[in-house]
Amino acid sequence: MADNNSLNALIEALRRLPGVGVKSASRMAFHMLQHDREGAQLLAQALQQAATRIRHCNMCHTFTEGEVCGTCLDASRDRTKLCVVETPADQAAVERTGAFKGLYFVLMGKLSPLDGIGPKDIGVSKLFSRATQGEVQEVILATNFTAEGEATAHVLGEALKQRGLKVTRLARGVPAGSELEYVDLGTIAHALVDRREK
Amino acid sequence: MADNNSLNALIEALRRLPGVGVKSASRMAFHMLQHDREGAQLLAQALQQAATRIRHCNMCHTFTEGEVCGTCLDASRDRTKLCVVETPADQAAVERTGAFKGLYFVLMGKLSPLDGIGPKDIGVSKLFSRATQGEVQEVILATNFTAEGEATAHVLGEALKQRGLKVTRLARGVPAGSELEYVDLGTIAHALVDRREK
Repeated sequence: MADNNSLNALIEALRRLPGVGVKSASRMAFHMLQHDREGAQLLAQALQQAATRIRHCNMCHTFTEGEVCGTCLDASRDRTKLCVVETPADQAAVERTGAFKGLYFVLMGKLSPLDGIGPKDIGVSKLFSRATQGEVQEVILATNFTAEGEATAHVLGEALKQRGLKVTRLARGVPAGSELEYVDLGTIAHALVDRREK
Repeated sequence: MADNNSLNALIEALRRLPGVGVKSASRMAFHMLQHDREGAQLLAQALQQAATRIRHCNMCHTFTEGEVCGTCLDASRDRTKLCVVETPADQAAVERTGAFKGLYFVLMGKLSPLDGIGPKDIGVSKLFSRATQGEVQEVILATNFTAEGEATAHVLGEALKQRGLKVTRLARGVPAGSELEYVDLGTIAHALVDRREK
């Protein structure tokens, strides 16, 4: 396929997608060219439009097309509670529960010193100024329960407490619907430590 | 994310890629927007360019930007042998072996009556006219050894033999470097039936 510059360029470009290697990229390119040229054009337009139009919300740092996102503009939400998540996908997960009516702050990442991702690379200073604007009374840390997410929660929690805010973390414990026999030991140990009165 | 039309459009467009569901599509979109906007623009251009420029080779039906692809134009290749493969990826695999110096015909698919893919949907009539142009003496069927690939090889083989051509099929047998203990029974059975004199 040495004479096929457009095809090679497409395969190379597809490889920039996360989790796509050279085999998947070839499969995607062949599929689009053989069965879905309309989809290829559509994807090209969508990429161009998203890359030019989408920016970060001035309040919560999530992706939005306006100055401030729809959630932050929603007057019916509780402005005293701020839920800190790593990504828009995490925000969507919390939102789907319907159990939280406050506002969000999306870090767009997590602290990860090994990958060279420090406080400046995620929106930490933006979070501090947002949380200390006056309205916010409680910050709920909802970063993931991975090593990096826990470290991020720890660092943010300490800094926010110093600024006089009430800081909470999502409860750790046994997942809904699960049998103790099949739950890992670390989770059971956490559930014991964090046990609550009935 | 109800107010985020460009983002939703991008996620929907990414879902048209084969093997990409809504979770992967979101992950890809977030990654591109957060970490690789240049890559997003690049992919958009590559898609557009490929979708408009790439067509099928007049001789072998593979993807190419010209009338005829580089392989078919190559005067040093043996024009009496035609290797029939399902996809450009399969062609590339045969080509990497360096063991074949003839020309190819790429079906761009396989017969699959259950999915409604008949002889018209793959380049069968184009193959017949190509194979009977006079130069070709032997057609090597190198479709995959799946149920559909085998059926395709059978149908093509019968039709090409009727047209007076010599038709061969890739050998089935024990893969290079493998131990019999770990090879499946069907493969060993085929290797026994197709055994060759030493």
